Amino acid sequence: MKWYFVAALLTVLTSSQGILTTLSQTKGSYLYDYATVPFLAEFFKLVVSGLLLWREFRVSPSTRITTEWKTVRLYPIPSIIYLIHNNVQFATLTYVDTSTYQIMGNLKIVTTGILFRLFLKRKLSNLQWMAIMLLAVGTTTSQVKGCGEASCESLFSAPIPGYMLGALSACLSALAGVYTEFLMKKNNDSLYWQNVQLYTFGVLFNMAKLIVDDFQSGFENGPWWQRLFNGYTTTTWLVVLNLGSTGLLVSWLMKYADNIVKVYSTSMAMLLTMVLSVILFSFKPTLQLFLGIIICMMSLHMYFAPPHVLVDSPPTPKPAPEALKEVSIDRKADS
Amino acid sequence: MKWYFVAALLTVLTSSQGILTTLSQTKGSYLYDYATVPFLAEFFKLVVSGLLLWREFRVSPSTRITTEWKTVRLYPIPSIIYLIHNNVQFATLTYVDTSTYQIMGNLKIVTTGILFRLFLKRKLSNLQWMAIMLLAVGTTTSQVKGCGEASCESLFSAPIPGYMLGALSACLSALAGVYTEFLMKKNNDSLYWQNVQLYTFGVLFNMAKLIVDDFQSGFENGPWWQRLFNGYTTTTWLVVLNLGSTGLLVSWLMKYADNIVKVYSTSMAMLLTMVLSVILFSFKPTLQLFLGIIICMMSLHMYFAPPHVLVDSPPTPKPAPEALKEVSIDRKADS
Repeated sequence: MKWYFVAALLTVLTSSQGILTTLSQTKGSYLYDYATVPFLAEFFKLVVSGLLLWREFRVSPSTRITTEWKTVRLYPIPSIIYLIHNNVQFATLTYVDTSTYQIMGNLKIVTTGILFRLFLKRKLSNLQWMAIMLLAVGTTTSQVKGCGEASCESLFSAPIPGYMLGALSACLSALAGVYTEFLMKKNNDSLYWQNVQLYTFGVLFNMAKLIVDDFQSGFENGPWWQRLFNGYTTTTWLVVLNLGSTGLLVSWLMKYADNIVKVYSTSMAMLLTMVLSVILFSFKPTLQLFLGIIICMMSLHMYFAPPHVLVDSPPTPKPAPEALKEVSIDRKADS
Repeated sequence: MKWYFVAALLTVLTSSQGILTTLSQTKGSYLYDYATVPFLAEFFKLVVSGLLLWREFRVSPSTRITTEWKTVRLYPIPSIIYLIHNNVQFATLTYVDTSTYQIMGNLKIVTTGILFRLFLKRKLSNLQWMAIMLLAVGTTTSQVKGCGEASCESLFSAPIPGYMLGALSACLSALAGVYTEFLMKKNNDSLYWQNVQLYTFGVLFNMAKLIVDDFQSGFENGPWWQRLFNGYTTTTWLVVLNLGSTGLLVSWLMKYADNIVKVYSTSMAMLLTMVLSVILFSFKPTLQLFLGIIICMMSLHMYFAPPHVLVDSPPTPKPAPEALKEVSIDRKADS
């Protein structure tokens, strides 16, 4: 499987996630407990990875798996980072509104690039750095509030801790991604075995969240396992399957491609969701969405195109007549 | 003189032009006839170029000047193109509002690139093409109407001829620039002699416009030469001197640099004007202005930085450890 097929599939599925989640609402609100969705998605990923690992073992009994505690103990770390991230996110939202938070979220693209460089020691060319910054600028552009929309005072007038927490949130989100990539590439263990470890902790952490929620609400809706499927419709199940599938694709990309590929996939998905919303939900297309798409497409090309395609002039086997060129290149005046 | 000093000076002066023009208003309206400004600016450029040509002749009597009709007859062409352009602009504005026209004006950056390639046969790398498109996207981004502003229905709902005339206007504007560059680089004539020819026709065409205006208004304010300086203040004179000086700098750039340099200068000037307006006239800074500036700066770097700076990784004399890199570059799955 080529990485760009996986990346394209991830874009389509991530983008469907937004659409499906909107469609899973009944009259504008959720009749199910949204916290059950990531739990079931983790469970789905664990089952799928378990089955694939079992099949892999049957086909080649020499499949590599490391069961040393020294390695296994690293697998809860991404879940822990996400847990901290979710709390920071919650704290940030007490200082800034959701649209300012969304705008600040684009910072994650840049922080991923930085941690990718610092933590995974991956070198990027100047052009690739520029491409990453452009991707963040492009996604931000597409989210600029348009004319006719309410005042956007809030963006430049949030309290300082709001911006600092937003930046911290972007760093934690990037750290989780970069750490997962580090884990997946750390050794040549079977991807499915690595997944089984990752998702076992994922299931446990999400279950813990459901239990904490139960205690916080005083068990008014009964314990989590009794209300797990309450209000579930076919669309809700599609949301779960979709979220689980995107998770599996991300895992694959972390092992065989990298975080930057994932960042491009999910950024493109955001733009695709906006375009689909224009078509499906009759949202008004805006100039800034159009500009954002152009910027992100150029960024994509800048990052992934081979350098010689970018800097070389179009191939001209025979030397071109240089006369006119020379006059204009001579940029020194005699005045 | 280095071309980038001239380009930077052009940016500063072009940007002052907008500020000075605003300052030259008395209580929000012009007490002078704005059509007299380009006429006087052409006259100023003609006088300055004439004096410089005279000085150049004294210093080196071998200064090259071509006085053949075959060459001289080409010099009114830029003025003719501008005349057509102004009429097309007027026609466009009967279909679209000024802010839509301003947005479409950014197309000029791309058409300049295209005519530069087709007409002057200048090769651009893929990256330079992308930089030119990004510059247009960046200036457009900075002009996106922000939240709190009135509805922007008009942008996507103008009649088709409005868009076609807007595109024609962008082509004519680019053609005038590219043709002037062709003229200036056509031979090794003294820049001042070329300027004298260009501005003589400039003075004549602008005078013709004043006369036509006189006839259209039925001479109600008297003939143009009697009302020429009516309502002029010191600021109005600064507007004239500034416009004349930018014209002289553009001429210089056309001979010793090129149209793309000019396009960058004037685009940066537009952004600088917006930043200065925030400072001087207490305009609200917008997110889109900030994004537009980042995009244009990256475009500038992409276009002008030497290719090896862009595509090479930062210089590492000793071979870097490739172990981690290799794992991640191996993007083929065994699944």
